[in-house]
Amino acid sequence: MDEPEKSLKERLREAMIACRESVFPAYASPAEVFDGLAEACRELGIEEWDVYAERGPVARLEAEVADLLGRPAAYFPSGVMAQQVALRIHADNAGNRRVAMPDLSHLLVYEDDGPRILQDLRIEHLTTGRETPTKAHLDAIPGPLAACLVELPLRDAGCILPTFDELAELAQGCRERGIALHIDGARIWESQQWFGKPLAEIAGLADTVYTSFYKGLGGLAGAALLGDDDFVAQARLWRHRMGGTHFRSTAEAVSALVGLRDRLPHIGECVTWARALAAALPPSVTVQPPVPHTNTFLMYAAGDSDAVNTRLLAALEEHSLAFSRPWKASDEPGRVVTEVTVGQGALELDAEIVAGHIAALVGSRLSRERRSKRLHGHTAGDIFGRTSEVLLKGSLMSVQFEVRIDGMTCSRCVESVTNALGDLDGVHGVEVDLNPGATSSARVTADEPVEPRVLRSTLAKAGFTIARDT
Amino acid sequence: MDEPEKSLKERLREAMIACRESVFPAYASPAEVFDGLAEACRELGIEEWDVYAERGPVARLEAEVADLLGRPAAYFPSGVMAQQVALRIHADNAGNRRVAMPDLSHLLVYEDDGPRILQDLRIEHLTTGRETPTKAHLDAIPGPLAACLVELPLRDAGCILPTFDELAELAQGCRERGIALHIDGARIWESQQWFGKPLAEIAGLADTVYTSFYKGLGGLAGAALLGDDDFVAQARLWRHRMGGTHFRSTAEAVSALVGLRDRLPHIGECVTWARALAAALPPSVTVQPPVPHTNTFLMYAAGDSDAVNTRLLAALEEHSLAFSRPWKASDEPGRVVTEVTVGQGALELDAEIVAGHIAALVGSRLSRERRSKRLHGHTAGDIFGRTSEVLLKGSLMSVQFEVRIDGMTCSRCVESVTNALGDLDGVHGVEVDLNPGATSSARVTADEPVEPRVLRSTLAKAGFTIARDT
Repeated sequence: MDEPEKSLKERLREAMIACRESVFPAYASPAEVFDGLAEACRELGIEEWDVYAERGPVARLEAEVADLLGRPAAYFPSGVMAQQVALRIHADNAGNRRVAMPDLSHLLVYEDDGPRILQDLRIEHLTTGRETPTKAHLDAIPGPLAACLVELPLRDAGCILPTFDELAELAQGCRERGIALHIDGARIWESQQWFGKPLAEIAGLADTVYTSFYKGLGGLAGAALLGDDDFVAQARLWRHRMGGTHFRSTAEAVSALVGLRDRLPHIGECVTWARALAAALPPSVTVQPPVPHTNTFLMYAAGDSDAVNTRLLAALEEHSLAFSRPWKASDEPGRVVTEVTVGQGALELDAEIVAGHIAALVGSRLSRERRSKRLHGHTAGDIFGRTSEVLLKGSLMSVQFEVRIDGMTCSRCVESVTNALGDLDGVHGVEVDLNPGATSSARVTADEPVEPRVLRSTLAKAGFTIARDT
Repeated sequence: MDEPEKSLKERLREAMIACRESVFPAYASPAEVFDGLAEACRELGIEEWDVYAERGPVARLEAEVADLLGRPAAYFPSGVMAQQVALRIHADNAGNRRVAMPDLSHLLVYEDDGPRILQDLRIEHLTTGRETPTKAHLDAIPGPLAACLVELPLRDAGCILPTFDELAELAQGCRERGIALHIDGARIWESQQWFGKPLAEIAGLADTVYTSFYKGLGGLAGAALLGDDDFVAQARLWRHRMGGTHFRSTAEAVSALVGLRDRLPHIGECVTWARALAAALPPSVTVQPPVPHTNTFLMYAAGDSDAVNTRLLAALEEHSLAFSRPWKASDEPGRVVTEVTVGQGALELDAEIVAGHIAALVGSRLSRERRSKRLHGHTAGDIFGRTSEVLLKGSLMSVQFEVRIDGMTCSRCVESVTNALGDLDGVHGVEVDLNPGATSSARVTADEPVEPRVLRSTLAKAGFTIARDT
């Protein structure tokens, strides 16, 4: 390439913004958004400013969030501040600076060590890498803890979630040891479909919850911290002490109110669409988690990041469809990774077509059947609804087949099956569609067909059985 | 009163907002302000969002502020955060947590002890109460200091300022001892007229400067921290660590850019108008400082706060002119105090008329001459321009006369003259109009005329002479 990498990045950024359509949450221009905020004030009857995060739309936002999540809420300007404050309050209350959290927690990876430096917290790792948290993880940490933080979903692991029962058991474990359970729920809105419970029931498992207004809800910025009255009062004190109580937060609050009104009702559809896209991807693209838990997942493929991104730039400019963000080198040499977050704009798009663009980008192609579907214009919903019923025919590059599996109940089962099948010779892709309480399925991509006998014994060793009708 | 105090406060708040005209900085409704931000984006060619306080209007705002104040700038969401960060960087750099600041500093009065608790700072008092800082104050603090903070103007003392020469001497004293000088310049924009120097020359006296975008500039929120490149880079790191680097700060940044464009050019006029108002007030209203240094000053009067505020509510509703904020009990029993901040809307108003409303509120009246002027409709500029030339006639309540004084050069001279004359028997008001390098004047309010001989000797003891033409 003639261009230095920075310039390619910059051109990609501009090309993403310039696209007419986007899989990702897209942002109108500042002028358009401010027009929209003015309109929203008129629609929502907002005539008053907040004053240092009291009154007006901030109070209204706090009330709406409290209603949705089932407990008092305090507005915060950022998640970084909200979570430092939450954990420090728990530590102060307990007289103990020791808290547990995933080693991939936002607090440990992206906050310049603020939780330790500013709040004097002492950190234990609740989980490592792509583990989802369970009571067993908590049991493995001896001694008193002030708080246990779970990140729902764990973003750096591909936005993965424990099951509701696992979370409930962990909460019970915390209660038994007098440990405050804190949910990092930046994307709790995006997690509801996975848990299949009302938001307040999910939040109700924890003592305190943080959530964000600018991810799934599409607000300008801002967050909330929820807990009992005393906790929220302490949180407001610390917010002020840290410089987080601003003269006006009305713009942020109105944008969040709009998000609760206009975006929250559609987040479940975005999760469904994300699963449809993941299912439609060619076998050469690995998805983590194999079946997305939320509207966000990771994609891996073979390639060099500069080469892939150069092709991406051309494709964005050609199609004016933001179907992929820039890719970066994966930990594994010769492989690249990118994160997909499905926004509301994607609901107008055909997941098959988007998958086709991604396939072309990483030098792959969809199976003949899928390409034919694409030509016949099936919708995302159609494709997703039928994925687990269709035995996929061989693609041009490899063999794909589906195994229907009984006995799978949770995300750990998905991990076990994915690992067991993935370890077989010649298998280079496993995508599991979890169907707890009924028959789940795994879509396997391999160089050649795997013998049923081998499949059966492999799954049996992992504790599962092949469903009779496979 | 039948109403509990809270209800009166609330009714006052609503009445202030409902006024058609206002002496104070007034805020349009949220919808109107968002419409204005959209329009400003179009006028200013802002098509890009900031992303975590990089790029777009935040970068542009940082550049404009850097240009005005003569050094690199980092955007901050709040002054509380900006100043904690500034002092902690100085303390970290010096390997010494000890910093000096006024005992009335915002950091010590309004920040819930954050500077000590979060940044582990150790505080020495540079000045006490209504002192303005000088090198002598610094000299009085033994031992090494990491930083010396001056609040320009010192808000809780009535927004008072040292002279430029005093500040320059203090800066020299800091340099000699290797102490970083930090300006709390939340209202540095409002202080420029007093110093009579370019903003960059004032800021240039210090190592680091904080300023605010939502006071004189009328922005939604936000601040900047300025220093050399290394300081600003450290500031950005700490901003992030404290949770102050938000997803979007575009609304705040655009509002600040509008403030720099539309408000900054008129702040000097607001200061002049504030002086006109102070000069036009009846002798029963004490002004601190006697001649306002900025567009903000304190007013004291005899009264009970509930009674005054009840009258204020009626007057606001009657005149639809926000001429006074609510009053509160002063430290001195039987006296009340309120702060006046002159906004751009005041420039359309007649200071005499506003003074008349204030006089009526506190049960006083303007002098006959002043009431007559009010009837003849002099403008604020007229009145102010003539104040020092007019020997005021006796009012209905007391005697007012003017003394023209030579030898006054600075705010400390104003203090000396005010104190010396104020200590005379029967004198209950002194308002000085400082005119450095020429003849200044003091307007004295007393129960009866003071003998010229007494005036002359009193001023001589303080180091000044009565001008020949008095």
